[in-house]
Amino acid sequence: MNRAYTVIGNGSFATALTKVLCDSNHEVTWWMRSEVAKNYLVTHQHNPHYLSQVRFDNPRLTYTNDICAAIKQGDVILFAVPSAFITQILALIPQDLLAGKKILSSIKGIVPQDNLLLNEYLHREYSINDDHYCCITGPCHAEEVAAEKLSYLTFSSSNQSLAQDIAEDFANSYLRTLVSQDVYGVQYAAILKNIYALGAGIAHGLDYGDNFLSVYNTNCFNELENFMTAVADHNQQLNTPHHYNSGPYLGDLLVTAYSLHSRNRRFGNMIGKGYSVPAAKLELNMVAEGYYASKCIHEINSIVKAPTPILDELYNILWENKSANIAFQNISSLLH
Amino acid sequence: MNRAYTVIGNGSFATALTKVLCDSNHEVTWWMRSEVAKNYLVTHQHNPHYLSQVRFDNPRLTYTNDICAAIKQGDVILFAVPSAFITQILALIPQDLLAGKKILSSIKGIVPQDNLLLNEYLHREYSINDDHYCCITGPCHAEEVAAEKLSYLTFSSSNQSLAQDIAEDFANSYLRTLVSQDVYGVQYAAILKNIYALGAGIAHGLDYGDNFLSVYNTNCFNELENFMTAVADHNQQLNTPHHYNSGPYLGDLLVTAYSLHSRNRRFGNMIGKGYSVPAAKLELNMVAEGYYASKCIHEINSIVKAPTPILDELYNILWENKSANIAFQNISSLLH
Repeated sequence: MNRAYTVIGNGSFATALTKVLCDSNHEVTWWMRSEVAKNYLVTHQHNPHYLSQVRFDNPRLTYTNDICAAIKQGDVILFAVPSAFITQILALIPQDLLAGKKILSSIKGIVPQDNLLLNEYLHREYSINDDHYCCITGPCHAEEVAAEKLSYLTFSSSNQSLAQDIAEDFANSYLRTLVSQDVYGVQYAAILKNIYALGAGIAHGLDYGDNFLSVYNTNCFNELENFMTAVADHNQQLNTPHHYNSGPYLGDLLVTAYSLHSRNRRFGNMIGKGYSVPAAKLELNMVAEGYYASKCIHEINSIVKAPTPILDELYNILWENKSANIAFQNISSLLH
Repeated sequence: MNRAYTVIGNGSFATALTKVLCDSNHEVTWWMRSEVAKNYLVTHQHNPHYLSQVRFDNPRLTYTNDICAAIKQGDVILFAVPSAFITQILALIPQDLLAGKKILSSIKGIVPQDNLLLNEYLHREYSINDDHYCCITGPCHAEEVAAEKLSYLTFSSSNQSLAQDIAEDFANSYLRTLVSQDVYGVQYAAILKNIYALGAGIAHGLDYGDNFLSVYNTNCFNELENFMTAVADHNQQLNTPHHYNSGPYLGDLLVTAYSLHSRNRRFGNMIGKGYSVPAAKLELNMVAEGYYASKCIHEINSIVKAPTPILDELYNILWENKSANIAFQNISSLLH
């Protein structure tokens, strides 16, 4: 079957994934909120704000800023927007339009207020079952996909044939695609890694070096495993196969923690240098996913109760005004 | 007890560890082969070739190029030389001088020809038992120790009280010390990480990007666990406690694989760029530990038989003249 895709969002990852779908000659409807942005793409065939070197001249690609028309066109609806905006965007879509659609998510965050993963939120609000849901996780800098550097994406769903089908649609010469059943675990790993990367930025800002960072990242991976295990227990997913020494867990942590360009790391670096959280927000004119995720995960962990001393101290710095210096002294005494 | 230390070697890690011992006010005898190097240190109080900003003005530090005198002075003899030179240096020491001494090693390689770890070699050649042997492993760039950036070292011995004593001697405000019983495992991990870092350099030279590298490193860690497990089985060390998500295993791999400055990575990068192995050796005027280690580990693995497809392909590139391009195509198809 030649599935038609609808892409929701025009940030860097949305742009990269649209390129991939075009390269494998799928029918793609690309929705973006802004009419100006849409018209620019129609005229110039590239996204001026993200990955602007990627040329979109595929005749099977259409642009729209009518979200209902976009949803109707697609068999698979790919949500590729920051988690902070997802509820606003979903609110634009009449419930019955999503019935029967396959949902694909590349969102690396938690639905705000509700502390839910997107599949949990869609189930509660739209009665969409997990067997219609698949998520995409990295490790993946969108810039390297744009440059066609070999990358790996994992497609996770409780419905393995759905995951397999979509994975095949995305696979090409520069993109290897893997499948997983651990739909909760990979999404939590993608969220946690942003918090840990923000912490790596704080450590860098505090003038810790590469020796420390390697031990910090190692212990973050350890803690991530603890959290995954506690979540799987809590969701009674004990039989979900997972192998944490693989791309969507350790790999995603590494590509983010060692990236000097990530927002999370830059935000953290400012905190480590002594900026207050409000000052860092103002200065950077953006908010890192890891900042909000820290609060959501803290609240979720009050239920699942994983031992996460690093996350706890990062939460204390970001939300309880604790001195980053003292918090990292505490963290450093725990590492091994 | 205030232990007297003898340091053998004057490379960067020897220099860093001598600084640490001086900072905690131990009696240290520092041996180096070259009389010129010794006289320079006596006169100028710093090592001109490595970590030259570190000043040695401790009255309890003495320099010598008489190895017998050096060994006699120390309760603990720290060998901190490249593995390629260890047998030549040991040959300078009469066997009876080492009797009763505690041996400390920071050597990150295998004794050439014999494919033995230093403790195995010392046992066979000098009847030194493992309970007199302790090894130091990172993750640790010597430059960051010199700069007093917080770092972690692990001291491993089958004799836990020896490991504990020596670990306490090295601990200070910028150096956290941990102990381990896994004396074989930590040494193999320190060796393997050089090979994998050399491979990361090859991948970089072949123009693979950060997305690939994160998945490559993740799978290297996975393979390292396989090798450790097979070695522990083979040595019937099944009850040795180990926790691979910690500094001397994953941490050491990360600090090396992500270091742009390591010899192994530079050597690999040239191979990836198309240099032959002999041309890369000539151009760099040095040989990376990972190059020889690749051969030793290949031979050891013909006995312990761990599944190590990445190591196998790196061996093929370095020793069997296989195309790096083809070998990495094979590696990339195996990663997950």
